[in-house]
Amino acid sequence: MEGHGAYNRSSGVQAAGSMPAVDLLKVAGDTADLAPAPQPIVIADYGCSEGRNSLLPMGVAISSLRPRLGADRAISVVHTDLPGNDFSALFAAIESDPTTYLAQDRQVFPSAVGRSFYEQILPSDVVTLGWSSWAVQWLSRVPCPIPDHVQVAYSRDAEACAAFARQAAEDWRTFLFHRAREMREGARLVLLTMATDDSDDFGYQPLLDMMYATLCGMVQDGLISADDLKRMVIPTVGRSRGAFAAPFEHGRFEGLTLERIEIFHGEDRVWGEFESSRDAQRFGAKWAAFSRASLFPSLAAALDDPSKAPSFIPA
Amino acid sequence: MEGHGAYNRSSGVQAAGSMPAVDLLKVAGDTADLAPAPQPIVIADYGCSEGRNSLLPMGVAISSLRPRLGADRAISVVHTDLPGNDFSALFAAIESDPTTYLAQDRQVFPSAVGRSFYEQILPSDVVTLGWSSWAVQWLSRVPCPIPDHVQVAYSRDAEACAAFARQAAEDWRTFLFHRAREMREGARLVLLTMATDDSDDFGYQPLLDMMYATLCGMVQDGLISADDLKRMVIPTVGRSRGAFAAPFEHGRFEGLTLERIEIFHGEDRVWGEFESSRDAQRFGAKWAAFSRASLFPSLAAALDDPSKAPSFIPA
Repeated sequence: MEGHGAYNRSSGVQAAGSMPAVDLLKVAGDTADLAPAPQPIVIADYGCSEGRNSLLPMGVAISSLRPRLGADRAISVVHTDLPGNDFSALFAAIESDPTTYLAQDRQVFPSAVGRSFYEQILPSDVVTLGWSSWAVQWLSRVPCPIPDHVQVAYSRDAEACAAFARQAAEDWRTFLFHRAREMREGARLVLLTMATDDSDDFGYQPLLDMMYATLCGMVQDGLISADDLKRMVIPTVGRSRGAFAAPFEHGRFEGLTLERIEIFHGEDRVWGEFESSRDAQRFGAKWAAFSRASLFPSLAAALDDPSKAPSFIPA
Repeated sequence: MEGHGAYNRSSGVQAAGSMPAVDLLKVAGDTADLAPAPQPIVIADYGCSEGRNSLLPMGVAISSLRPRLGADRAISVVHTDLPGNDFSALFAAIESDPTTYLAQDRQVFPSAVGRSFYEQILPSDVVTLGWSSWAVQWLSRVPCPIPDHVQVAYSRDAEACAAFARQAAEDWRTFLFHRAREMREGARLVLLTMATDDSDDFGYQPLLDMMYATLCGMVQDGLISADDLKRMVIPTVGRSRGAFAAPFEHGRFEGLTLERIEIFHGEDRVWGEFESSRDAQRFGAKWAAFSRASLFPSLAAALDDPSKAPSFIPA
């Protein structure tokens, strides 16, 4: 839909929201059990997208492991995403971005896996440190249409809400099940994703309501069909604290323990900029660019006539 | 330049030419020293392109190693190519192609590295079995323009010929140097690439002369500039038996030994089809499609005005 690096250019929202988790990743790197030499040390980045948001956390993970390993021990960094991800943008960022971890350390070896993390995609017992940011909110599939919104969090349809909640619970267990296979005994996994807060609020409501209203207007104007709109779903979920904890209710889940869970409001860098600039045009444009890069491709995929995609997401 | 999978669709020429080397890969898989568990077994595919030509040899390599490893031992298959390679096409082929090795074996884990094989791109001492087909004929850089052709094998310019020969020698040693780091003691590497035969013939002359003549015609017609043509170089070389053997003249090179070298005329499936069909149109179209996928992007990269590329390689 968009050229190389569109996601990289508009992913500042996620980057700003990941800092507290990066601190936890450093702690995890300081404390994870290390594979004995000559077994490789593997850091996995689950759901890397085009990589820009991976460079800083991977750099932090490498820096925390390196003093424990000595200068000569190789560290493998494996970035994973769906097959259709732009891996060329990922490898270009790893090679050339000014913030790349590759420049800091000669014994770091990046690679990529283009497969869904809802399967086992790495050999058993190899991962020392896992990281996943802004990824596990994406469901493995859309369980059903949402009749009254594009985001299930703002639907009042009980059936759709229940189907999405079931899918979210199943996907969360599936994700953990496969990571449990891939992680070594004593490995650590730090995960940052969307959640609902303790008053069950998913957030983003003005943005998402506006998006749905605009789509309804496009149906009225004949730009898209009512059937197109019915199929348009953003297949993300915000899980509650209880939903995250559920697989661990009896302690261990597939050998994993839940060490810490924290729900917080992410820093909204776009809002912060607006507060000092008061430039509403720029504020809107930034959120639009973010939505375009992260959400519009999911909506456009629902178009009955794919040739409409370029006019649905104009350049 | 072309959409997803253009190389996959037009790579039958290389596939047909790789069968004798695939037999050697099977032997290599039967005899390579194996890393002791729990170290992973790594097969590396250097210069994978979009992967279609990798599926068969990787399947053969896995089948030869599997009985020696038992059903539960993981095998990692690492496909490497330049960052700009279409890794989405690669991962789609690995997941869905009817001939994919992934369907045969549950304990196989594919990944990709988007970096030049003229560097060390895997940790030291990890590779058990290496494979590279139709890749090391590509030089790491164009050492100088070729004033009288697009392929140095048919240039009469002594300076250009010497500069390309020096680059080819340097790149071959660089390739081997880094593979020697990555391979374990007792590992095997099977390599298929272009060569000159013992009468120093590179082959493909009618095709390449026609290509150069057509480009000269395009300059006369004003479709491309004389400067564009000067920069147009196919940066491949056919090395002689002596050039391949040179790094090993004193026996070992960086710990590697040259076990076997064989130069043969590859099967020309397109010619074989023509001999039975006598359809000259189809013969020409097949070679054109092959040239378009494998060579035209190198030529188009020389255009001073990149916006001309679509008319230089029309859809």
